[in-house]
Amino acid sequence: MENETAKSFDKHPHFIVREAEPFNAEPPPRLLRLSIVTPPELFYVRNHASVPEIDADSYQLKISGLSNRELQISLAELRERFSSRTVTATLQCAGNRRDGLMAVKEIGGEVSWGAQAIGNASWTGVSLCDVLEFAGMTTDARHVEFIGLDDVERKGARFGFGGSIPLEKGLSAEVLLAFEMNGAALAPVHGAPLRAIVPGYIGARSVKWLGEIKVKSEPSENYFQAHAYKLFPPGVSAQTVDWNEGLMLGEVSINSAICRPQEGESVRTGKCTVQGYAIAGGGRGVERVDVSGDNGQTWVEAKFDADDSSRWAWRFWEAEIDLEAGEAEIVARAWDSATNTQPEEARDIWNFKGYMNNAWHKVKVFVS
Amino acid sequence: MENETAKSFDKHPHFIVREAEPFNAEPPPRLLRLSIVTPPELFYVRNHASVPEIDADSYQLKISGLSNRELQISLAELRERFSSRTVTATLQCAGNRRDGLMAVKEIGGEVSWGAQAIGNASWTGVSLCDVLEFAGMTTDARHVEFIGLDDVERKGARFGFGGSIPLEKGLSAEVLLAFEMNGAALAPVHGAPLRAIVPGYIGARSVKWLGEIKVKSEPSENYFQAHAYKLFPPGVSAQTVDWNEGLMLGEVSINSAICRPQEGESVRTGKCTVQGYAIAGGGRGVERVDVSGDNGQTWVEAKFDADDSSRWAWRFWEAEIDLEAGEAEIVARAWDSATNTQPEEARDIWNFKGYMNNAWHKVKVFVS
Repeated sequence: MENETAKSFDKHPHFIVREAEPFNAEPPPRLLRLSIVTPPELFYVRNHASVPEIDADSYQLKISGLSNRELQISLAELRERFSSRTVTATLQCAGNRRDGLMAVKEIGGEVSWGAQAIGNASWTGVSLCDVLEFAGMTTDARHVEFIGLDDVERKGARFGFGGSIPLEKGLSAEVLLAFEMNGAALAPVHGAPLRAIVPGYIGARSVKWLGEIKVKSEPSENYFQAHAYKLFPPGVSAQTVDWNEGLMLGEVSINSAICRPQEGESVRTGKCTVQGYAIAGGGRGVERVDVSGDNGQTWVEAKFDADDSSRWAWRFWEAEIDLEAGEAEIVARAWDSATNTQPEEARDIWNFKGYMNNAWHKVKVFVS
Repeated sequence: MENETAKSFDKHPHFIVREAEPFNAEPPPRLLRLSIVTPPELFYVRNHASVPEIDADSYQLKISGLSNRELQISLAELRERFSSRTVTATLQCAGNRRDGLMAVKEIGGEVSWGAQAIGNASWTGVSLCDVLEFAGMTTDARHVEFIGLDDVERKGARFGFGGSIPLEKGLSAEVLLAFEMNGAALAPVHGAPLRAIVPGYIGARSVKWLGEIKVKSEPSENYFQAHAYKLFPPGVSAQTVDWNEGLMLGEVSINSAICRPQEGESVRTGKCTVQGYAIAGGGRGVERVDVSGDNGQTWVEAKFDADDSSRWAWRFWEAEIDLEAGEAEIVARAWDSATNTQPEEARDIWNFKGYMNNAWHKVKVFVS
């Protein structure tokens, strides 16, 4: 980020940089909670290599694999040939809230995200399904792979960050090839000139700087699908892992976090207003959020903000709880439309890559 | 069950009758775990009134509401006009495992189910979507209501058990109007001559003795949708409940249970084979089951049985754990394809109607 890409990304002065190069950053909780649609300068950035600079005019998207013909489509052709569509969708890094897992037991070589590796935007682009229909598919098609134009190095090899989604998901109208974020051209850090947007899935599948789409019979063998972004049982370590095993991440689980007050804040005795976000994966609804000031002995049901326009977006919530003087821990948990809820303890879902921490979110405050 | 319906239902001698009239019963865990497809005589029965006796020859299904015309269709016409379809699907009562919630705090007036108010069958019938397409719908259509021919009494009124599902689900090919279970005609206790089958949803939506289908703009106002089968926060009681609130149950959450060994069984020291089932709602996959002999300090990953033919069916699993002499508690938890997992403690998800207990399943055994 200290390089040329800084020019085009006017990052918020309070953005929390977790890693300078590759640039990885998230906003503070309080700022994240200000607007249901996250402005680009407060939208988390998860990179695995330097931000590539791509000339939009000469850019060509390649579509290959099982389709009947190989295609190269320029941005202008993409906009011309297919109708535009706007979807409001929340993206969440699979490593969001990793700090809570790191507090349980060491996790090596991964970014220590707080609960703000998440953001919600209105994405405009063309529907992947329209492009796939145009490209044509064989009957063997089962997965859609996205490959980025960045230049990642892993295990001595260099390649573009990539991953795949099941074809069934790829044919859903909400999956976009997006060129705009909140009504303006995508910033380079957010994937310009074109990125995938896969609502309801971990952020890693919304591949940025999209260079190629491959229709395949098997899931992607890209490092970030076949090795990283897999969930392993608590007993598996970097030393014992068999990469052929593990749960290939896709849809995200029910999750919520407290954004106000923040960890370590001082608040007054009496009524305390607690605000946060909640998200359910796969288009399921967030149906309820419970907030507790006594570690789950008693709960207050939170109220949702009125804005509830997209099944792919998070919901903002607010609750009032009573706090007595002293140190207090505020806890939140959410429920989705399938009555899935969050597990209580991070220690019970610890995994050596530090993914998908959706344990009850806890914030310690000082009450006086 | 002591009445005329007993004639046609050859119940298993070890069926556990939880209530004689209306007849409510579930099999013992060990018998449930014998076959991935549950035989009708071991398939749980959840009734809210006496089992009606319906003459299949004169039976007519009524289709009404927002459709352009009102229809009456006989069973013969239904079979003739629409193509048959078979779906293997697990049904689970929303009250399955209620005993675990009752152990936390009293729950009044509800059946005390063990972990066997669940069963898996191969259902044959016609797809609801074909019937709805034939009937025609207006643009206001949003929900599909099913009303049974049984005669329930609640709050001084008599009516058929009913409930609705979103139209989007109703138009999915897996939702059936079924007349066969495991290749034979439905038994009266299981809904003969015709029942709804809504895979991935709580059992209550798979209405038995189906008398009428209504296409509606709003969810069903039937008692069993508008009052019962709603999830309330832990602080709400029968005295304080506002029935306009609450989470209307639909898709089921990730769940699993240990079937062998059973609670209170004596087992040998050393290797212990643990067997059970796991289920994910809404067509999500069961991706992993963890089993622990030390209340979650360490986990063993279970192996799944080979049979994995339907995304709407449970999965059988087996694990081997080491047990030392003394009293031991075996614990199981499952993960779905969206990495939702089960909460640790029943006390944290207690609700006054006793629904959707998916806390870690725990079985105490004596090891010697």
